[in-house]
Amino acid sequence: MTAISSNLDFLLDPASIAIVGASDNPDKIGGRPIFYMRRHGYQGKLYPVNPQRPQVQGEKTWPTVASLPEAPDLAIVAVPGMKAVEAVDDCAALGVKAAIVISAGFSEVGPEGRAVQDDMTRRARQAGLRIVGPNSQGLANFGTGAIASFSTMFLEIEPQDGPVAVISQSGGMSAMIYGVLRQRGIGVRHMHATGNEADVTVADLARAVLADPEVRIVLLYLESLQDTAALAEAAEMARQRGVPIIAVKAGRSEAGVRAAASHTGALANEDRAVQAFFEHHGILRARDPQELARYAELFIQDAHPSGSRVVIVSNSGASCVLASDAADVAGLQIASLADTSQHRLSTVLSTFATTNNPIDITAALLSNNRLFGEVLTAIEDDPAADMFVLDIPVAGRGYDVPSFAQDAASFARRSGKPVAVVAWQEPVAQAFRAKGVPVYADEQQAMSALAAMVEHSRYMHADSSEIKPDAAIDVTLPPGGSGTLSELDSLSLLSEHGISVIPQQLCKDVESALDAWRQYGVPVVLKACSAALPHKSEYGLVALGLNTEQAIHDAISSQKATLEKMSVQYDGWIVAPLRKGLQEMMAGMNFDPIFGPVVVFGAGGKYVEATPDVAVMLPPFSAGQVMDKLRQLRIWPLLQGVRGEPAADIQAYAELVAEFSRFALGSNGRLKSVDINPVMVGHRGEGAWAVDALIERI
Amino acid sequence: MTAISSNLDFLLDPASIAIVGASDNPDKIGGRPIFYMRRHGYQGKLYPVNPQRPQVQGEKTWPTVASLPEAPDLAIVAVPGMKAVEAVDDCAALGVKAAIVISAGFSEVGPEGRAVQDDMTRRARQAGLRIVGPNSQGLANFGTGAIASFSTMFLEIEPQDGPVAVISQSGGMSAMIYGVLRQRGIGVRHMHATGNEADVTVADLARAVLADPEVRIVLLYLESLQDTAALAEAAEMARQRGVPIIAVKAGRSEAGVRAAASHTGALANEDRAVQAFFEHHGILRARDPQELARYAELFIQDAHPSGSRVVIVSNSGASCVLASDAADVAGLQIASLADTSQHRLSTVLSTFATTNNPIDITAALLSNNRLFGEVLTAIEDDPAADMFVLDIPVAGRGYDVPSFAQDAASFARRSGKPVAVVAWQEPVAQAFRAKGVPVYADEQQAMSALAAMVEHSRYMHADSSEIKPDAAIDVTLPPGGSGTLSELDSLSLLSEHGISVIPQQLCKDVESALDAWRQYGVPVVLKACSAALPHKSEYGLVALGLNTEQAIHDAISSQKATLEKMSVQYDGWIVAPLRKGLQEMMAGMNFDPIFGPVVVFGAGGKYVEATPDVAVMLPPFSAGQVMDKLRQLRIWPLLQGVRGEPAADIQAYAELVAEFSRFALGSNGRLKSVDINPVMVGHRGEGAWAVDALIERI
Repeated sequence: MTAISSNLDFLLDPASIAIVGASDNPDKIGGRPIFYMRRHGYQGKLYPVNPQRPQVQGEKTWPTVASLPEAPDLAIVAVPGMKAVEAVDDCAALGVKAAIVISAGFSEVGPEGRAVQDDMTRRARQAGLRIVGPNSQGLANFGTGAIASFSTMFLEIEPQDGPVAVISQSGGMSAMIYGVLRQRGIGVRHMHATGNEADVTVADLARAVLADPEVRIVLLYLESLQDTAALAEAAEMARQRGVPIIAVKAGRSEAGVRAAASHTGALANEDRAVQAFFEHHGILRARDPQELARYAELFIQDAHPSGSRVVIVSNSGASCVLASDAADVAGLQIASLADTSQHRLSTVLSTFATTNNPIDITAALLSNNRLFGEVLTAIEDDPAADMFVLDIPVAGRGYDVPSFAQDAASFARRSGKPVAVVAWQEPVAQAFRAKGVPVYADEQQAMSALAAMVEHSRYMHADSSEIKPDAAIDVTLPPGGSGTLSELDSLSLLSEHGISVIPQQLCKDVESALDAWRQYGVPVVLKACSAALPHKSEYGLVALGLNTEQAIHDAISSQKATLEKMSVQYDGWIVAPLRKGLQEMMAGMNFDPIFGPVVVFGAGGKYVEATPDVAVMLPPFSAGQVMDKLRQLRIWPLLQGVRGEPAADIQAYAELVAEFSRFALGSNGRLKSVDINPVMVGHRGEGAWAVDALIERI
Repeated sequence: MTAISSNLDFLLDPASIAIVGASDNPDKIGGRPIFYMRRHGYQGKLYPVNPQRPQVQGEKTWPTVASLPEAPDLAIVAVPGMKAVEAVDDCAALGVKAAIVISAGFSEVGPEGRAVQDDMTRRARQAGLRIVGPNSQGLANFGTGAIASFSTMFLEIEPQDGPVAVISQSGGMSAMIYGVLRQRGIGVRHMHATGNEADVTVADLARAVLADPEVRIVLLYLESLQDTAALAEAAEMARQRGVPIIAVKAGRSEAGVRAAASHTGALANEDRAVQAFFEHHGILRARDPQELARYAELFIQDAHPSGSRVVIVSNSGASCVLASDAADVAGLQIASLADTSQHRLSTVLSTFATTNNPIDITAALLSNNRLFGEVLTAIEDDPAADMFVLDIPVAGRGYDVPSFAQDAASFARRSGKPVAVVAWQEPVAQAFRAKGVPVYADEQQAMSALAAMVEHSRYMHADSSEIKPDAAIDVTLPPGGSGTLSELDSLSLLSEHGISVIPQQLCKDVESALDAWRQYGVPVVLKACSAALPHKSEYGLVALGLNTEQAIHDAISSQKATLEKMSVQYDGWIVAPLRKGLQEMMAGMNFDPIFGPVVVFGAGGKYVEATPDVAVMLPPFSAGQVMDKLRQLRIWPLLQGVRGEPAADIQAYAELVAEFSRFALGSNGRLKSVDINPVMVGHRGEGAWAVDALIERI
């Protein structure tokens, strides 16, 4: 078997391309790529393969793949059914580097199709032939003119080379994303669809386009995440280059997952794990292709927000209100302008206008066409102004919109801060877009794009210095096979690996339990210890606050009777001091076959599943990152202390969870799940400690 | 003082209109209404008033209002400053019925302007002259051609009479809403802006347009809700006619409220109360003008959803996934098609296509242009199909879009069920709109419009039969002045008015406390009783589970010491049986100066303020309505019983809250607040009972 290279230049910049099933008709699938490549100036060699015609679209043809004068870098396979399989085999035999299999009827139609696809792919791999597809709409690179795609969308909206790369599992979505970007006037260089992904994946192509220095933003459409290592690598390349990756991952809901399964046979991903994976790797998520395009329009600006405070300028007071509401929903703040800015504004604005933010410049815009520019200049240096929204709900006759656009564009260039316009009137939108200023149809769209930019900026500048390079803890499991560890063994394992755990002893009988109680010198908890009993409290096998000989005696008798009635094996009783914390939190880990260990933390107690208030992250992460997530939970105010209660030791809990994340990472592939609930959190200074835990091996 | 009529025909259908400050230039504020009225066929008499010119725009002028040959129905006042005030006075003297004061510089610029406005309005009222404005963009009725508005928007997008009425406090927003509606091809009859609302309000005009039989939908833009009685009356007219009212109420967030205050001096409304008011009166809420227009496009269809299950049909599998996700977010379900439907689908679709919903008709659409129509026909009678989304992310060359549109339109007419299209390509959108089918740019927009229709339909068919006509309970307050009632008095008052309350006794000393304990025969709670101590537990003045003489003795001694240290007046101790429920819930009421009593209910306990999980409604409402709201709370699963726990007596709690809503209504204007927390909810069959309460008089 030949080694497979991760360099995919021959896909994006092939020196020569064969088209198997080449057609003279530019509207046929086998004709369109030829038509496109001639139109968009492909400079390499074209080898149309067609046994019936000497020429197609004025290009000489060859009758078979075998008859080609050289092994081309790339072959487009556009013949149906088993002919496609034969063509791929022929390409493999000739030494072609890659084949884009446009033909459908493979894994997407059922098990038989999948078997044919798998066999074809295996043979190709053996010959060192990479496959895109099958069932792919193809790849298009407007930087090189290599348009190995049959999408009709290039006929609907004229291509224009630009800074954007679009990579999609679905051909329809690749075309739609291209379309909505071009509709916004954004230039697109790459538009690639991977179809059934028998070999080359979206992640592979993401790495490939990131090697193109002209690419300044990468947009992905995914229905199933499998190739996480490659995607993580692409994300790291993107981070180093400062190129945002924004992804739509469809199939978020159960209904969506079902639809995806019947669309591409996509395997379900747990959506919270997907989200955690994206955040971990700094990939921004968008809801749908339209949002993707809205984000892209802002992100291709050479602008960076230094914070999340927005200045709103409008010629309508009502729009100031709507924009303020939308900023709030998006999690942005209304910047409080400095006195100097307000003073400068007062010299620019009419007497009646307010100099607060949002800035209502009123109908005065009709008599002074430079007012937008003057207002922007007046506040340009305000340290609170992280970004700007110009909201123009009404313009037209009497308004010099091209002047507004010119002023906004100059300001954006000068300040380096993000500027977005809200305008629904097409001529107004076009005037701003013509000057390179992003335009949104409503306040909500503008604010959410700006908020996405703030979020992405946070990803890019996340301080991971707290996480040690050797982040994974080397986890040593107790001897023995698979299955669940007892509570005692679970807590011991955590304790041995540096996680704070309540002191405890395993007692075989009443006497040793009494010894333990006397030794602790405080009321104790007494719990039956058995790996077979994950939910002890539901069976009355947990006794709290025992502080007399009699009470300990009674508890053991009663639990013994219960255990005998249930006929379960048990090791004895765990005796631990009853140490009340302020809040019950939790920490857990689930091993995901795609994402590996996925850590959950947040509010603990009995009702974690019924009313979850938790965050999900991929390990490892720092205590600081835990704090950022805790701030978004409903329990956050309670951790601060409300109604005269003291504050909890959140820092200690965050450190425990961060340490646990290193444990979780170290357990990769060996532990199925860890559930620490509760983690008691004491008063500030008292710390946090695991009280109960359950560990399941794979 | 002349009686003010609520009939505003002279505003919407005036027989004669004076224009004070009439201009020969159609681009001036005083010229544009004349230009519009001639253009749009106004049939009444026009009286331009201009002392300088014998004619404007070919119309004879009069030098003064006093010189007019008759008192016109309506005068448009378009002269600046104090001249406007004089003109209004002249109109009042002549007996004009209404004046639209376009002139600005009144309450919106400060206290001086407000004083002038108030004086002018007072004099007008005395003469029976109604005022729209000042600072109004004017009123426009394309049904009569009475375009008493200077908006430039009618020049930007050609007017077309239609079923929609737009009424807005802000002139800019009235124009924008008109614009986005017309951009979607929707005809607009009324476009009215009320400006400073010195007299005529948005609610007044809502009643007026609802008298127009051609109006089939009313859209409102509000920054402040004051005139709630008139709006409630308009809502009732709308309900009777089956006309939806959809409102944007801006100023939802704190930032938005601040912006609104500086825009129109709008008074803040508590947004949860606004929402409750809208729901109570069946007014649907939209986020912004764009959403308003999206809803309107669907609502003007003659279609009614019988449920919330949607069928998705697309030529892209990926769109099926995105649409399913969007349906889930919007709270809609994916309809499960009947076997008969699936069988019919299998005869229409290709072998490989799935016959499940969402229905991916694949690229087969390219070879069969009637496929959309055939698929719709196949599932038309499916009882699970409440509404339909056709999602077309890619069309163009090779697709017969006009056929799709024709088929969709016929289907929509035939079925009477809502049909919405998702298409971003302008020619595709236009083809469907031309046939009257609503079109959305993405799945989220389509699904949220459909969900809004389901919600509105629920408003219209809400079963209020459970609520008795004499819904308000006649509340009798104890004698005495204002301020807070003690816990005992609070609970007694509730109990006297039919609300279930825990038994309790006020005990003056240890002996009577012991008597009470012996009488209940169970452990008791002992709480200091004082109107001066609303938060007793924070001061250690609540003792739980006392079940010995000693314990009761100790508790009273200790509380007595605390009370003496705090130097507060107290009445003694409340002794009540400790009766544990399953869940702590709450119910409360706050008197709002605008909305009257506003009821809050949901999860109770100490942390209601810190982590609220409550619903807000205006009284009165039924137990069934309470249940609907409870289902949306986070605590809902816990009320059902999780982890082997029994279910709570939710029905009893819902009945208690419904009864409390009648009490709250009966307390209107006399109680400032009621806080019942906790309301204990027992096992199913055990009931629900108030345990602690605090009532504050106005």
